[in-house]
Amino acid sequence: MDFFMSLLSKTAASPYQEIESEGDKSSDVVWHLASVSHAQRETANGHAPAVLWFTGLSGSGKSTVANAVDKMLHDLGCKTYVLDGDNVRHGLNGDLGFSDADRVENIRRIGEVSKLFVDAGLLVSTAFISPFVEDRESVRAQLSDSQHSNSQFIEVYIDTPIEVCEQRDPKGLYKKARAGEIKNFTGIDSAYELPINPEVHVKTAEQSIEACAQQVVDYLKCNGYLDV
Amino acid sequence: MDFFMSLLSKTAASPYQEIESEGDKSSDVVWHLASVSHAQRETANGHAPAVLWFTGLSGSGKSTVANAVDKMLHDLGCKTYVLDGDNVRHGLNGDLGFSDADRVENIRRIGEVSKLFVDAGLLVSTAFISPFVEDRESVRAQLSDSQHSNSQFIEVYIDTPIEVCEQRDPKGLYKKARAGEIKNFTGIDSAYELPINPEVHVKTAEQSIEACAQQVVDYLKCNGYLDV
Repeated sequence: MDFFMSLLSKTAASPYQEIESEGDKSSDVVWHLASVSHAQRETANGHAPAVLWFTGLSGSGKSTVANAVDKMLHDLGCKTYVLDGDNVRHGLNGDLGFSDADRVENIRRIGEVSKLFVDAGLLVSTAFISPFVEDRESVRAQLSDSQHSNSQFIEVYIDTPIEVCEQRDPKGLYKKARAGEIKNFTGIDSAYELPINPEVHVKTAEQSIEACAQQVVDYLKCNGYLDV
Repeated sequence: MDFFMSLLSKTAASPYQEIESEGDKSSDVVWHLASVSHAQRETANGHAPAVLWFTGLSGSGKSTVANAVDKMLHDLGCKTYVLDGDNVRHGLNGDLGFSDADRVENIRRIGEVSKLFVDAGLLVSTAFISPFVEDRESVRAQLSDSQHSNSQFIEVYIDTPIEVCEQRDPKGLYKKARAGEIKNFTGIDSAYELPINPEVHVKTAEQSIEACAQQVVDYLKCNGYLDV
């Protein structure tokens, strides 16, 4: 057994309490572990926590809608954050490459970090293509051991026809994929598996971004996330 | 080039803006990317963000003091969270073993996640032994590219004599280490490298936990973190 095993249990959480219970009168510290409960965080924030898991093709508008939702929620007084390629891929997942295993690990870590943000009481939006049902359902399962009445995993399908995404093609990625310069590009030579029963389904080719974002915020309003 | 390369750049952040700038009048969406700034998060929270990096021996009281600080800051209206073995080791770092490389990766990921929480505007406390100066300084460097006037890395040395830690030994880990059942146990057969110039230095064997926690909160107060 390695000392790191100590991290697997609540070793350091209540040493003083245990000393006291063992009757060690030489200790001058008496301590009942203070920690902030989920309920206290919710009450302070005025809303329930959840991850808004945006999924869709490259160029579909995931980050754009996610940031718009984030701004709307912030303006409503919510505590929020956005996880996307900009802040995750260079840092936490900077050691990951592009193999199948690394793609799975990429989504697993994002799911775990989302769970920490939810545990901290935030409404966290994630904006990653996340093309495979199995990976998304794994994250849903990661977040399912909650004591909350509401689900803490809200799948937001950014449904944009690939023709529109390809027309937008802001970085020329579709062009490169069509030319064979990029392999395993979602929608071209790698599958995008449609969400089976997403909590929110928005169509950026048919609605303004504000309307799309409002639809997500309305979902939260109508399902009691914003009235704690 | 793989499609995942798209995550390395701001690909999805402003597709509509780019479409507009290219003069694509067929698009019915016009969008200036809305995102919440650091300043807006600070103003809403009423405090600056930072990571309080607790370091010290097993049984020194890191988690206990960290949770006490977290509670005090929460009661002051701050947005806070604690990262420790309980919520990190099973989840995000559940794939890591106990090799030297994995120990470094453990601390690296905790540093990166701390950085995300700081980016989200929180005062996040981390409670890990983190025995090596190099690893702690790496995290300090990870957090040094800030635009904030205050440092976002605050090292809190939980300075407790090993004799006291060993006497507390709530899980019997020191006993096992002394018996040779645990190898590479910090303080027994693996080094704990003292913090060189920690921002806060508390002694749990000489002060109550409340006094220790208050000392950390006072550091934040006196250095302008709580008056934004």
